[in-house]
Amino acid sequence: MSKLRVSCFSISLDGYGAGPGQDEQNPLGRNGAELHGWFLTTRPFQSMHGPSAQGTTGLDDDFARRGAENLGAWIMGRNMFGPVRGPWPDERWRGWWGENPPYHVPVFVLTHHARRPLEMEGGTTFHFVTGGIEEALGRARQAAGSADIRVGGGAATIRQYLRAGLIDELHLAVSPVLLGSGESLLGGLDLRALGYRVTEHVASPAATHVLLQRGPAT
Amino acid sequence: MSKLRVSCFSISLDGYGAGPGQDEQNPLGRNGAELHGWFLTTRPFQSMHGPSAQGTTGLDDDFARRGAENLGAWIMGRNMFGPVRGPWPDERWRGWWGENPPYHVPVFVLTHHARRPLEMEGGTTFHFVTGGIEEALGRARQAAGSADIRVGGGAATIRQYLRAGLIDELHLAVSPVLLGSGESLLGGLDLRALGYRVTEHVASPAATHVLLQRGPAT
Repeated sequence: MSKLRVSCFSISLDGYGAGPGQDEQNPLGRNGAELHGWFLTTRPFQSMHGPSAQGTTGLDDDFARRGAENLGAWIMGRNMFGPVRGPWPDERWRGWWGENPPYHVPVFVLTHHARRPLEMEGGTTFHFVTGGIEEALGRARQAAGSADIRVGGGAATIRQYLRAGLIDELHLAVSPVLLGSGESLLGGLDLRALGYRVTEHVASPAATHVLLQRGPAT
Repeated sequence: MSKLRVSCFSISLDGYGAGPGQDEQNPLGRNGAELHGWFLTTRPFQSMHGPSAQGTTGLDDDFARRGAENLGAWIMGRNMFGPVRGPWPDERWRGWWGENPPYHVPVFVLTHHARRPLEMEGGTTFHFVTGGIEEALGRARQAAGSADIRVGGGAATIRQYLRAGLIDELHLAVSPVLLGSGESLLGGLDLRALGYRVTEHVASPAATHVLLQRGPAT
């Protein structure tokens, strides 16, 4: 059955999914890039940016690969799509990823400001959804069919879906760094009460990987 | 040189050092015992409660052993000493640990309510300090000489010492469990700005161990 998944979401030891001060120069916020050390060396990441035989193998790579498997649609918050805030001044911002983004499926971008769909190379089309998380999920389910849907981020978007009890599975990579401030992923959220349990826990030198799955709330 | 250390402090994946609802029946708060799975099987723990040849060896055991080495004094918050709140009604509460507590050195208990020192078997004496964290540290330094001082907990006590920039080294064991609520160890504390860096990161099936050390603030 199609699952709503978060995969490969990196957080710091102190729980932040991005650093403070996100802008066009710092899409991950200040020091936020430190969260992603484990991912940058993997084959799935390397193959987005060149010949696919590059990159490490092993635990980090396995998780990166699992994260990319069986996806029929993505959902992301507007800040993950770009640094533009408020109404779209024009259609010039086309995402962080160039003309051939690494999604290759429909991507539903949550925003308060309507915009025409944006068809990119390689199968990625960005759809701008103004009706909230349930509307985005409904449209993503239609697009994905029996494949899974991945909520990319950022933290605020994932928190909305978690609060609504909609996420089936959450893979976090806890990186051994301190950010000190930024966007907290889990602060104030009672995942235990929402029915989540840790079902996998394994570490590489670069990150501790944990899988949370949702069962009946207790 | 004598260090002020936190060792073997267990937190959940969502950052809690104890569960909610601490009382005499639940000294670690609701579900808080789940944090300590990695520790309960180690030789240092087993040897507190019976013949010392019991217990696992390996990574968890190594960290438990390091945590117990070279200690000349302990500091703890009053809630770690016991469930009594407010003025001491009498001297009947003598700690959670029976007549021979597993410290064997002077232990300085932070409290707002004066009480006479309590000498136990095996070298442990509980001293009740009403002058705050600096006074407790000063007295612990005198008692410890060149040995280290360990801040046992709870989270609120450790946070006070972290905020004051007094802790040299912090070993955390992140257990693969969700508590959902309770006492957050790092929430709202900017350890990066306080000068802490991750200097070790390694995991067993039962916990991810991280060592944070303090350098110059950046």
